[in-house]
Amino acid sequence: MTGPGRQAQLIGTGLIGASIGLGLRHVGWTVTGRDLDEATGEAALAVGAIDRIGRNPDADLVIVSVPSGSAVQAVEEALREHPRAAVTDVASVKASITEAVEAPRFVGGHPMAGSEQDGVAGADPSMFLGAVWVLTPSDRTDPDAFALVHGMVTSLGADVVSLPAPEHDLMVAMVSHVPHLTAATLMSLASRRSEDHAALLRLAAGGFRDMTRIAAGSSAIWPDICADNSAAICDVLDDLIAELQGVRTVVETADREGLVARLEQARAARTNLPLRAVGAADLVEMRVSVRDEPGQLSLVTTTATGVGANILDIEIAHSAEGDRGVLVLVVERPAAERLAAALLVHGLVVSIGQLP
Amino acid sequence: MTGPGRQAQLIGTGLIGASIGLGLRHVGWTVTGRDLDEATGEAALAVGAIDRIGRNPDADLVIVSVPSGSAVQAVEEALREHPRAAVTDVASVKASITEAVEAPRFVGGHPMAGSEQDGVAGADPSMFLGAVWVLTPSDRTDPDAFALVHGMVTSLGADVVSLPAPEHDLMVAMVSHVPHLTAATLMSLASRRSEDHAALLRLAAGGFRDMTRIAAGSSAIWPDICADNSAAICDVLDDLIAELQGVRTVVETADREGLVARLEQARAARTNLPLRAVGAADLVEMRVSVRDEPGQLSLVTTTATGVGANILDIEIAHSAEGDRGVLVLVVERPAAERLAAALLVHGLVVSIGQLP
Repeated sequence: MTGPGRQAQLIGTGLIGASIGLGLRHVGWTVTGRDLDEATGEAALAVGAIDRIGRNPDADLVIVSVPSGSAVQAVEEALREHPRAAVTDVASVKASITEAVEAPRFVGGHPMAGSEQDGVAGADPSMFLGAVWVLTPSDRTDPDAFALVHGMVTSLGADVVSLPAPEHDLMVAMVSHVPHLTAATLMSLASRRSEDHAALLRLAAGGFRDMTRIAAGSSAIWPDICADNSAAICDVLDDLIAELQGVRTVVETADREGLVARLEQARAARTNLPLRAVGAADLVEMRVSVRDEPGQLSLVTTTATGVGANILDIEIAHSAEGDRGVLVLVVERPAAERLAAALLVHGLVVSIGQLP
Repeated sequence: MTGPGRQAQLIGTGLIGASIGLGLRHVGWTVTGRDLDEATGEAALAVGAIDRIGRNPDADLVIVSVPSGSAVQAVEEALREHPRAAVTDVASVKASITEAVEAPRFVGGHPMAGSEQDGVAGADPSMFLGAVWVLTPSDRTDPDAFALVHGMVTSLGADVVSLPAPEHDLMVAMVSHVPHLTAATLMSLASRRSEDHAALLRLAAGGFRDMTRIAAGSSAIWPDICADNSAAICDVLDDLIAELQGVRTVVETADREGLVARLEQARAARTNLPLRAVGAADLVEMRVSVRDEPGQLSLVTTTATGVGANILDIEIAHSAEGDRGVLVLVVERPAAERLAAALLVHGLVVSIGQLP
């Protein structure tokens, strides 16, 4: 669904926007970009992230990469200005924007990649290689818009993970937001204690450096993230505080078995933390017959995520009559069988074929 | 103080012991080693970490690298079996062993380096290059024993940081023990939540991986560490829990300024986290006249740590009369001036000279 001839419009050409622009131009898209900050737009042009500054009303796809506080407004505006285009965004919290924007042509997105470097200077299309890029289809999502956004994401080398927006928000609170806040808290504590013990920070070896690395990032995005996702963040923080109190009891009472049990559980989980699934070796094409009605796309894609199936490509074949269609998915073989089984449970007709 | 002709005895030839053996043999020491586990001793011999298995009563230096639960006993035994040797250990907690062992020839040590790989198979003398290796001299410590251990450590490429044992223990609780327990707790929480949300761990990107990496390490050493250092660990855990509760309030009340203040403090501290001081460029020799009495060595070396002076080499020149001596230190120039000023405050006479 990507390739020569496609036209993209970037709204916001900072670090993420410019990185997307570089990547899309590399695979043959024509990219027009604009940014509220004139210098940022010019910098994006200078590094080759866009073909020209301005508006392209004929764009097939609009990518909104603005601070999350103004994302809803920018997306609504993009939908009005581009009445046929698919529109996506890159904000780190998804439930609020997905609820606020009702248009079926909008597909919420969250590339889980970044850089400690701010701005266009850090732009790098390889940022997305092997990264997870969450899409949050809802019952309203238009399959063609979804397929276009999906194709754009995979053409940048990222893996699409489709999730309901509220589930995404809870998950990123656990694996991103609370870890970030915890790293910053540990770093501040150590720094404060080092005022009395000058040598303390010299003792901070590899493990401490690894744990606190993310605290070196810019703080600018966090007030919006914490405001948008405060319920999920507080929920995870409550769990973390309760667990740390449990650890304290184990340490204070010298409960050796309790300690080892906790650490072994963590060790097993860390060792099993999935690396990126390397694919392209044994891929199959799955054809899923769906009714042309709300929720079918969302059902198929989030079911795929649920069984760990990585959708590498997605196309929609509409039937002539208009009431049915076929989703054509490219997935890895072992996951394809799990996915087919899960879709059958939902009453969907699935066929699997070898790719040519 | 190191070099050809020196003889070392290793008690315990696992990961750390074997790594030390490899490094010492490389700089010309003759190394004898033994381990309660026969296979471990043989493996150390096979990888070239020791010249022979057994006991060398003429060793100048005994290095005890055994599980910390049996370290006191092993050190006491080494002191009896080697009546003239300096004895050091590598346990991660230092106050208990430093209090328990009264002999002036014992110098507590803690190399802050390691590997996720257990056992002789992971042995690697480069493990210590650029690492911090804490020594915990006390008022009882014999200067010649200290200088020998110091020379051994620097010959392995590590930087010596001298600290009173209780201060060391509080610091490692902050930069090592509590971060490890926190990483394990975050990993376990994420793992438990992923039982309901299969995709959760796929969303764990670089930051989460960095933060939880240390949780993949062996859990075997932690019951002893937590038992030996429980007071300091509980103290730091209390601080961490209180701070996380503060973060929760900031998030819940959408206190944007409070959040940014916390994150900016952490960011500044992380950015300023010292890297290893690269030296050898502009070194000076400092001669410190000291009385041959308890506490002088400990005073000089921990004062150096207090002003951030890295002692690259240390020798003791005893006077003929026996009541006075000279500590000859090699330090980097800017730190040398701070150190001289701090020592003058303590009434010590200092001279600084260029190295040949």
